[in-house]
Amino acid sequence: PDADAMAAARELQARLTKPAGSLGALEELSVRLAGLAGTCPPPLPEPAAVAVFAGDHGVHAQGVSPWPQEVTAQMVGNFLAGGAVINAFARQAGASVTVVDVGVAAPVGGPAPAFVDAKVRAGTRDLAVEPALTRAEAVAAVETGIRVAGELVDGGARILLTGDMGIANTTPAAALIAAFTGAAAADVTGRGTGIDDATHAHKTAVVAGALARHAPDPADPVGVLAAVGGLEHAALAGFLLGAAARRVPVVVDGVIAASAALAAAALAPDAVAAMVAGHRSAEPGATVALAHLGLDPLLDLGMRLGEGTGAALALPVVAAAVRVLHEVATFDAAGVSEK
Amino acid sequence: PDADAMAAARELQARLTKPAGSLGALEELSVRLAGLAGTCPPPLPEPAAVAVFAGDHGVHAQGVSPWPQEVTAQMVGNFLAGGAVINAFARQAGASVTVVDVGVAAPVGGPAPAFVDAKVRAGTRDLAVEPALTRAEAVAAVETGIRVAGELVDGGARILLTGDMGIANTTPAAALIAAFTGAAAADVTGRGTGIDDATHAHKTAVVAGALARHAPDPADPVGVLAAVGGLEHAALAGFLLGAAARRVPVVVDGVIAASAALAAAALAPDAVAAMVAGHRSAEPGATVALAHLGLDPLLDLGMRLGEGTGAALALPVVAAAVRVLHEVATFDAAGVSEK
Repeated sequence: PDADAMAAARELQARLTKPAGSLGALEELSVRLAGLAGTCPPPLPEPAAVAVFAGDHGVHAQGVSPWPQEVTAQMVGNFLAGGAVINAFARQAGASVTVVDVGVAAPVGGPAPAFVDAKVRAGTRDLAVEPALTRAEAVAAVETGIRVAGELVDGGARILLTGDMGIANTTPAAALIAAFTGAAAADVTGRGTGIDDATHAHKTAVVAGALARHAPDPADPVGVLAAVGGLEHAALAGFLLGAAARRVPVVVDGVIAASAALAAAALAPDAVAAMVAGHRSAEPGATVALAHLGLDPLLDLGMRLGEGTGAALALPVVAAAVRVLHEVATFDAAGVSEK
Repeated sequence: PDADAMAAARELQARLTKPAGSLGALEELSVRLAGLAGTCPPPLPEPAAVAVFAGDHGVHAQGVSPWPQEVTAQMVGNFLAGGAVINAFARQAGASVTVVDVGVAAPVGGPAPAFVDAKVRAGTRDLAVEPALTRAEAVAAVETGIRVAGELVDGGARILLTGDMGIANTTPAAALIAAFTGAAAADVTGRGTGIDDATHAHKTAVVAGALARHAPDPADPVGVLAAVGGLEHAALAGFLLGAAARRVPVVVDGVIAASAALAAAALAPDAVAAMVAGHRSAEPGATVALAHLGLDPLLDLGMRLGEGTGAALALPVVAAAVRVLHEVATFDAAGVSEK
C-alpha cells in the first residue's frame, strides 16, 4: 500500500462537508483503496466483474451434503441462463458474471466470455481418504484464477468479485480454514446449505479426520490446497492474487472465498491489501478466516448462499466509499463553517 | 399487511434456485414488502426518492453541539448544489433528493422540485426552558411530512428514504426516544457529530432535565413532539405515516428518523409495516428506538452522518431482496434438482 496516497485520503476525508469519522467503516475503506491504487482519490470501482468458479468434490461421497452432486452442473447452466441469485444481484449492480469451470464433475459449457472452460479434472478426489488434488492440479487451478483475474482487468474491470459453486464445497473450506488458522474443526464447520444435527456432526468428523490424516502444513499453501482443498478454492486463491497483482480491489464473498483468501495470504501476505470482505457469512469458518486476515466484513445479513451474492450486495458500499472522495464538496468549497 | 401476499412470497422463496433461508434477512424483508404491497412479488422499489427535512433547534443555545447553527442553512445550500454525501450516495443509487425546509433558522431557498419551502417557524424554542413547539406547530410539520410523501409517490417514487439536517437535532431525538420508550437519558444520548466527554455529560443532563420539566406523555404523541421534539422530527413522523398510507416502503435512516418513527408508530401502529431500518446508527438512541419498533437494521457500518446517507446505502439491499422474487428461476424452471 502507498502510504502517501493513504495519508492524502485521510486528509481529504477531514476536509469534506461532514463530521470527521461520521461515515464509519467507509472512511477507512476509502483510505485502504487509495493505498492499493497508489493515488487519491482511487479510481471509482466500475465496471465490476464477478467470476464464479465451479467445481465438484470427492468428499461428497461421505454424505456431507443433502444435495446431489449434479446440482453443481445444473447451477452452472442456471448462471449461464441468467436465472440464479448472483445474476439478479449482478444485473442490479451493473456487474458482469463469468462462470469458470475449474472442476465440475459433469460436462458443462457455454459461450464465451460468460463461460471459461478451465476444467483441471472432473471433481476432486475424496479428501477423507486421499489428497483431494495433486500439487500440479492445485497449481493449475491457482494459475487459472490468476489468469481470469488478469483477463477481467484487461477487459476493463476496475473491481473484481469472487463467486463459487460446488456442492459440498463448505467441507474443504472448513478444512482449509482449520489448516491455515489452527482452529478446531468444530469451530469452523458449519451447516452449509442447511443440514441437520447428525449430518453436521458427521461433517465435522470428516473435517477433523482429514486434518488428522493429511496434517497439512500452513507453511506449504499449495500442499494444503492439494490435500484438503478444492479446485474452486484454489482458483479463487489465484483470483485474489491476480487482483492484488494488478492493484485492483477484490470483494471476498463468503466462506469459500474466505478460505481461499487464507491460501492467497499464505502465498503472498501483501495480497490482503486488495481484499475487501463483502459480508459475514452465516458459516462460522468465514468469521474465523476473516479475523485471521484482519478483515472486517461490510455486511452481516445472515446470508450463506455463495455464488458471489454477498460480494455483489457489498459492491455499492465499496463504490460509495470511493465516490465520497470524488464527489463530496470540501468545507471551503461549499462555504460551510467548521466546528 | 396482506397475509396472502406474505404467504405467497414465502412459498415462492422456497421454490427459487437457492437453499431455503440462504438469503438471510433479505428473505424476510421480501415477505414484509409483499405484505405491504398486498401482492407477490411486490413492485421493484424504483425510482427512489430521498427527502431531507431541515430544521434548527433552540436547544442549540445550551451548548449541546460544537457546530454553529448556521451550518444547517449552509448544508441546505450544499444539498441543493449537489455537494453533500447524500447527493453522492443518491446519484449512485439513482435516487432523487428533495430538501424540505420545515424550520431552518436562516432564510434558505432553491428551485422546485429539489427545494420545498414549508418553514413552520425559524427554529424551535429551547426545550430546556419551554416546549419546543406549540401543538399546532408540531401538527403543521407532521402534515408537511405527509404531504411531501404523497407528492413524491404521486411523482412516481416507489420507495421513500428519510433524510434530515439540523445542527443539535440529536438532542431532541434523544428526548423523543426516552419519552416514547421509557429509556433513561443516559442510555439514549449520544455524541452526535462528535463531542467530548464534558459536552456529552452536559447534553445528557439537558435531555434528562427536559424530560423532567415537560413529563411528556407517550400516549399523546403530538404533545411529545411539541414538548421535546423538532420540526424535522415531526415532519419525518408525517413522512413515515404518508408512506405507510400509500403502502410504499420507507427506509428509516439514523437516530433522527428512528425517533420520528417512534412518534409515527405511536400515532398509527400499523405504519411500522412500511418501515425498513436502513442501518444501525452509531448513536445509542437509534438502537433503543429500533428495538422498540421491532425493526432490525440492514447495515451496521458505524455511520452517524444523517442526511439519509444510511438509508441510501441500504437501498440496493432492499431492491435486491425484491428483485430475487422477480428474477430468480425456480428449481422446476431451471431444471435444478432439489435435496
